[in-house]
Amino acid sequence: MSKKSIEICFVPEEFEGYFSGQEIVVVIDVLRATTAICSALDFGVNKIIPVATVEEAKAYKAQGYFCAAERNGQVLDGFEFGNSPIKIRSEKLKDQSLVITTTNGTRAIKTASVAKQVIIASFMNLDAVCEYLIEQQKDVLIVGSGWKSQFNLEDTICAGAIADKVLTNSNFSSDFDSTVAAKYLFRSAKDNIFGYLKSSSHRRRLRKLNLNEDIKFCLTANQTSVLPVLINGEIVKLNTK
Amino acid sequence: MSKKSIEICFVPEEFEGYFSGQEIVVVIDVLRATTAICSALDFGVNKIIPVATVEEAKAYKAQGYFCAAERNGQVLDGFEFGNSPIKIRSEKLKDQSLVITTTNGTRAIKTASVAKQVIIASFMNLDAVCEYLIEQQKDVLIVGSGWKSQFNLEDTICAGAIADKVLTNSNFSSDFDSTVAAKYLFRSAKDNIFGYLKSSSHRRRLRKLNLNEDIKFCLTANQTSVLPVLINGEIVKLNTK
Repeated sequence: MSKKSIEICFVPEEFEGYFSGQEIVVVIDVLRATTAICSALDFGVNKIIPVATVEEAKAYKAQGYFCAAERNGQVLDGFEFGNSPIKIRSEKLKDQSLVITTTNGTRAIKTASVAKQVIIASFMNLDAVCEYLIEQQKDVLIVGSGWKSQFNLEDTICAGAIADKVLTNSNFSSDFDSTVAAKYLFRSAKDNIFGYLKSSSHRRRLRKLNLNEDIKFCLTANQTSVLPVLINGEIVKLNTK
Repeated sequence: MSKKSIEICFVPEEFEGYFSGQEIVVVIDVLRATTAICSALDFGVNKIIPVATVEEAKAYKAQGYFCAAERNGQVLDGFEFGNSPIKIRSEKLKDQSLVITTTNGTRAIKTASVAKQVIIASFMNLDAVCEYLIEQQKDVLIVGSGWKSQFNLEDTICAGAIADKVLTNSNFSSDFDSTVAAKYLFRSAKDNIFGYLKSSSHRRRLRKLNLNEDIKFCLTANQTSVLPVLINGEIVKLNTK
């Protein structure tokens, strides 16, 4: 049996060069969209509808939907929620649908949606994602969200953590240098991810916005075993059992 | 006085997102174009004319120029030289002009040529490049050549080595995560770059072509203090003194 591949693409803009029909695409936006999505489903939100533009979010809001809208780290005027994974754990969202639009994360999800299955990952559900990928034994592409089309450190380290763990299963291999680099970066960061990311540009941006609690939450591994999956444009918990 | 910036862009395709008018752009294609260029000028080649296409190289050849043409690691039919930094040290090229076209390197040089000054770097002339950049005190962008538009490990580690050294000068700072990542990758690789790059996809490609001697040459730091610079479309030794 030929090995299954696991590769990493740093930003959605490079997706075409890395996507070769992999059955599973894993989307990561550690700070903070995919962490917020994991957090919301873990807390009890029923489903999440990712939309690319603020206009779409407004249209949903007009129909009575709860909406989360973030740009450049801040909640947009007229919206109650942004992409804080802490504030999204709100009683009023329990069992509800939530529409979400963010600077980078929702674009990455849209890009990935050509794949047969799209999984949402963050440090928060790291082991759950790895176990699922190993169990599935399918080709995997991990896509970071980047920051405005540019490489970012936190998504790459999270992607490297997933690749590193999945590659311990001998049925998987990788070929691209981006995967090798992400693995190396994770290994040098893993003993102190919070300290390592001090020089991450996005962490600096968020710190300026007094979002240190959010950052700590986003960098804390394995808070949940929830596995968000995109089905018909909506993100729900994957029914793995 | 505000600090000067030094940043790294992994592939020429991302150049626009990182170029903000930096006065100096440094181009790297460790395996093997920029190493071959450094080697040729070090050996005594008079000047190098980089061209993007094989057709342009053929046109120069018809005019009697020496030409080096490589695609996918191999010398093209009808050409005597490829981009081997060892074979390019040929007596017949001494004091001559050499036209060169390669898979990735020459494209990166063309992309960079919008900058005021374009410097050619490799491990071979690492310290010379760093010393020059520190001495100049200008904003710097380093561009890797990638492999067919994709991130590659060896260019990133070489770029990280330059950034790491230049940033020890307190007048420089960096802001992009790509620069932070490259620095970290260099630091974890530096004690054994040859071993570290065992998993580089391009090194594996070249090894299949029996180019291990070339790879060793390309990864050996500070073999020359030559500083190739692009002037009016031709690469010559910079007259630093």
